[in-house]
Amino acid sequence: MDRLETKWEAVSPEYEHLGGRALIARILLTEVPPRCDPLGPNNKLIFAPGLLGGTSLSSSGRLSIGGKSPLTGGVKEANCGGNGGSDLARLGIKALVVEGQPAAGMLYQLHITKERAELLPAGEWRGLGTYDTAARAREQWGGDCTVLSIGQAGVFLMSAAGVACTGHDEQDSRLAARGGLGALMGSKGLKAVVLDAEAAAALPLADAELFRASARRFATELIESPKTGRKGAMHLYGTSAIVAAVNEMGAFPTRNFSAGSFEAAENLTGQRLRELTLERGGKMGTPCMAGCVIACCNQFVDPVGNPVVSTLQYETIGLLGSNLGIGSLDEVARLNRLCNDYGLDSIEAGAALGVAAEAGLARFGDEASFTALLDEIATGSVLGRVLGQGAVVTGRVLGVSRVPAARGQAMPAYDPRALKGNGVTYATSPMGADHTAGNAFGNRLEVNPLGTEGQCELSLKLQLGAAMLDSTGLCLFARPPVFADPQLTVDLINSRFGWGWSVADLEEMQRALLQTELAFNEEAGHTAADARIPEYMTREPLPPHKVVFDVPDAEMDAIFSAL
Amino acid sequence: MDRLETKWEAVSPEYEHLGGRALIARILLTEVPPRCDPLGPNNKLIFAPGLLGGTSLSSSGRLSIGGKSPLTGGVKEANCGGNGGSDLARLGIKALVVEGQPAAGMLYQLHITKERAELLPAGEWRGLGTYDTAARAREQWGGDCTVLSIGQAGVFLMSAAGVACTGHDEQDSRLAARGGLGALMGSKGLKAVVLDAEAAAALPLADAELFRASARRFATELIESPKTGRKGAMHLYGTSAIVAAVNEMGAFPTRNFSAGSFEAAENLTGQRLRELTLERGGKMGTPCMAGCVIACCNQFVDPVGNPVVSTLQYETIGLLGSNLGIGSLDEVARLNRLCNDYGLDSIEAGAALGVAAEAGLARFGDEASFTALLDEIATGSVLGRVLGQGAVVTGRVLGVSRVPAARGQAMPAYDPRALKGNGVTYATSPMGADHTAGNAFGNRLEVNPLGTEGQCELSLKLQLGAAMLDSTGLCLFARPPVFADPQLTVDLINSRFGWGWSVADLEEMQRALLQTELAFNEEAGHTAADARIPEYMTREPLPPHKVVFDVPDAEMDAIFSAL
Repeated sequence: MDRLETKWEAVSPEYEHLGGRALIARILLTEVPPRCDPLGPNNKLIFAPGLLGGTSLSSSGRLSIGGKSPLTGGVKEANCGGNGGSDLARLGIKALVVEGQPAAGMLYQLHITKERAELLPAGEWRGLGTYDTAARAREQWGGDCTVLSIGQAGVFLMSAAGVACTGHDEQDSRLAARGGLGALMGSKGLKAVVLDAEAAAALPLADAELFRASARRFATELIESPKTGRKGAMHLYGTSAIVAAVNEMGAFPTRNFSAGSFEAAENLTGQRLRELTLERGGKMGTPCMAGCVIACCNQFVDPVGNPVVSTLQYETIGLLGSNLGIGSLDEVARLNRLCNDYGLDSIEAGAALGVAAEAGLARFGDEASFTALLDEIATGSVLGRVLGQGAVVTGRVLGVSRVPAARGQAMPAYDPRALKGNGVTYATSPMGADHTAGNAFGNRLEVNPLGTEGQCELSLKLQLGAAMLDSTGLCLFARPPVFADPQLTVDLINSRFGWGWSVADLEEMQRALLQTELAFNEEAGHTAADARIPEYMTREPLPPHKVVFDVPDAEMDAIFSAL
Repeated sequence: MDRLETKWEAVSPEYEHLGGRALIARILLTEVPPRCDPLGPNNKLIFAPGLLGGTSLSSSGRLSIGGKSPLTGGVKEANCGGNGGSDLARLGIKALVVEGQPAAGMLYQLHITKERAELLPAGEWRGLGTYDTAARAREQWGGDCTVLSIGQAGVFLMSAAGVACTGHDEQDSRLAARGGLGALMGSKGLKAVVLDAEAAAALPLADAELFRASARRFATELIESPKTGRKGAMHLYGTSAIVAAVNEMGAFPTRNFSAGSFEAAENLTGQRLRELTLERGGKMGTPCMAGCVIACCNQFVDPVGNPVVSTLQYETIGLLGSNLGIGSLDEVARLNRLCNDYGLDSIEAGAALGVAAEAGLARFGDEASFTALLDEIATGSVLGRVLGQGAVVTGRVLGVSRVPAARGQAMPAYDPRALKGNGVTYATSPMGADHTAGNAFGNRLEVNPLGTEGQCELSLKLQLGAAMLDSTGLCLFARPPVFADPQLTVDLINSRFGWGWSVADLEEMQRALLQTELAFNEEAGHTAADARIPEYMTREPLPPHKVVFDVPDAEMDAIFSAL
């Protein structure tokens, strides 16, 4: 970006067998000084599809985005659905690596086709939200392109800023939300990346027959599963399917994580979302990426049928709903739309708003008071800049000590006191508080979420599983067939590339990914002191179960010793 | 503070041979969980005179205040002149340790006499600055008491808040400024500590004759020295004596550390300060503590002779003067008065204001624009709360990457690019950027300040020397006799306590102090990644010498290996 040049490079052998999150981790450890200023010229912003991205395999097109995080100060990968991962892979690009910084205040768009990658001025888009940025880019380049963009939050270098990716319809906005990668993109002077993969040919397959057979088996298992099939909760309700269960567990963040169940949770459930949406002529069960057989998404519409947000999801319902004392999906959806448009992580923003409400700057349950705060973020006022830095900075500035965060990053919608496996993941994952790094919710019948027993073993298993998904481009919802039989993933990789991997090779990749990330964080200055749940959660019992977070520090410190 | 009780405890053997900073470090490592929330109930606020405090020895009454720092997240000791150290020692108190937290929002004063220590409500003082707080306390308890208090900044839990101590006249305000100890005091619900040592008897001496002889020798050497005697620069100009020299070296922070010499520096020199002050009927050469033979302080008055601030000092002139583009001592003094009154570290506040000016929130050279920002701090507005958190948070929120800080703490008035020994101290000292932890300015003829050679050796030597001063209660200005002959300090300690120490014992205490602090920081999560000068200072040359900070990381990482 300092020379405003684009360059195509061959993939070095060191990177060849890596994709998505694993590739990002390796590039960071190899090329980025771990102690660099995350918003300075030495950091790199990386876009990488997973190993299986761009193929006909269902649910395989998630796009990983990464860099040193301005939020956590450590390694960061966040991924999103939509067509970005598939398009980048189909363009024959293993990773797009953005280096350097342009002159202060300059903004650009990067347009990529099969033939060329070109940087063009985008200063006139400076004040636009992500919806308008995508619309302008599509006016310029055609409606079929995929647009990755930042909103006001990213341009203002806010640590709660994510990168938005367009999806299956005009309203669809999918964020690689976490860790402030939107601020990193802003620091590179990049307002948008436009991918035009129309002219791209199908990707080569080393063993087309095996690949097709494996892909067919994967899709069939998903379709026939009672969870992911057409009658399954994942298709019918999407991620919001779990609202009622998490609330019942007492882990549903309520009013800045001061309680684990919300009196109005029934108005926020997946069932309610489906009823309302279908009643009003919205959409349920849409795919976020071409060819996904699960199709978990929705287009939430207002009472007269106008689209508000696609897709309304569980974490957002928790953080912008119960966490703010808001018990209306319409209100949550409107706040969500603002976050998407401003290019904000709805988890980080929701947590910051909860902290602000505890400080008296908004009122729990009062949508307008939160809308006003989000608008402060979009205008870049001082208050907005505080909130836009996320929950930790908001708490520090406003003098609030109850800040639900780990490793600098706000917690998603599972209070770690009542789902302790997630507490372990929040504390120990190189990513900080991130449910996608290893979510113990699905294992609540196997390991008692209120007990301390077995939480570290469970979290490690889940973190290794997430490492596989995030590096192949597979969606978390599509995990059952590949978790049940790792050979299936190996067959897919081998038939795509001809590497002759065994299950042991795949597992080694997963372990190496975590080790690489841990090494980066260690060099960046993270220690066991960062691998902690906030002190107040170890002291203040969470209603209704009156539990504190009490997994022993020593157990968490030893979690990766067997890697 | 949770039980609103005071308790007198005998000194445990482990603490017996420690004073001031050394005692604080040991208490912290022994009693305070290094990873605790600095503003939570598990941190402790400690007031401790040095070993020689309360005696008739000149310049020995500095009061150390400490705890886990809300600014750096590490160990913290800041000390101040005035009569606080002497009074506490004469009351027979080795350390005042404040534990726990009262109910939210409650404020107290602690009144201590020879007979009793009593907590009394002080809610009605909530909105008062430190001058009014001290005046109210003296109305209540008499004009001779010493008042330690926090202003608005401490009550708002701001990390730039210090603790103010009254001194020799009503205008005198001396801050244990650094590291956010005012916020820690605020988190304990303590608005003021009032020391009434009038009834205190003289402290016992193990060998009165040796003590008096040693104290006499110490005073005589100070009086006869060309530096500290009546014709010396320290007496004539105080700390401001060095303005011209630092400016000439090109290390005088100018406009947010963007240059090392200031075009209006001649209006800020010690000579100018002395001329102006004497012309207007102010005072020069006053002592801050009873019996000091150096007497380096001043009472700066306005053009019609009204007191503005006592005492106007070098670091403040740098940070609130040249760093803000302000070339008038009257303007600096007015800004200094506001900082003192609001209970703000003038270094941290000045650095935050410089960053704010770079972000466009004030104009370099325009006093009124900075006064307005300081007033925001006092009212606790959102902008004020940002600035009150210090330079690092201000930079992060406002999107400024040029933030002159190390280990989270703003740099004092020596740009580390042009005085590299101080850069090493800023980076490696357990305290963060702190000139009193080891100031290489005085050694500029011995070690080239622009070179990389010998800086770590010099800094280590100075850090060990500071460890001695900060633990005995001796003022930095009084160092020549005791640095020249360590046996003098040993004689003073032995004749006071009868411990039979050798010079080796004294040196062991100094080494142990640094090791204890480093151990606390390590457990708190500090690593080599924290022991760095900001990246931009290693990249952007400082005019006029066009130098970057380039002491090799590996040398700094090894600085304490010989301890």
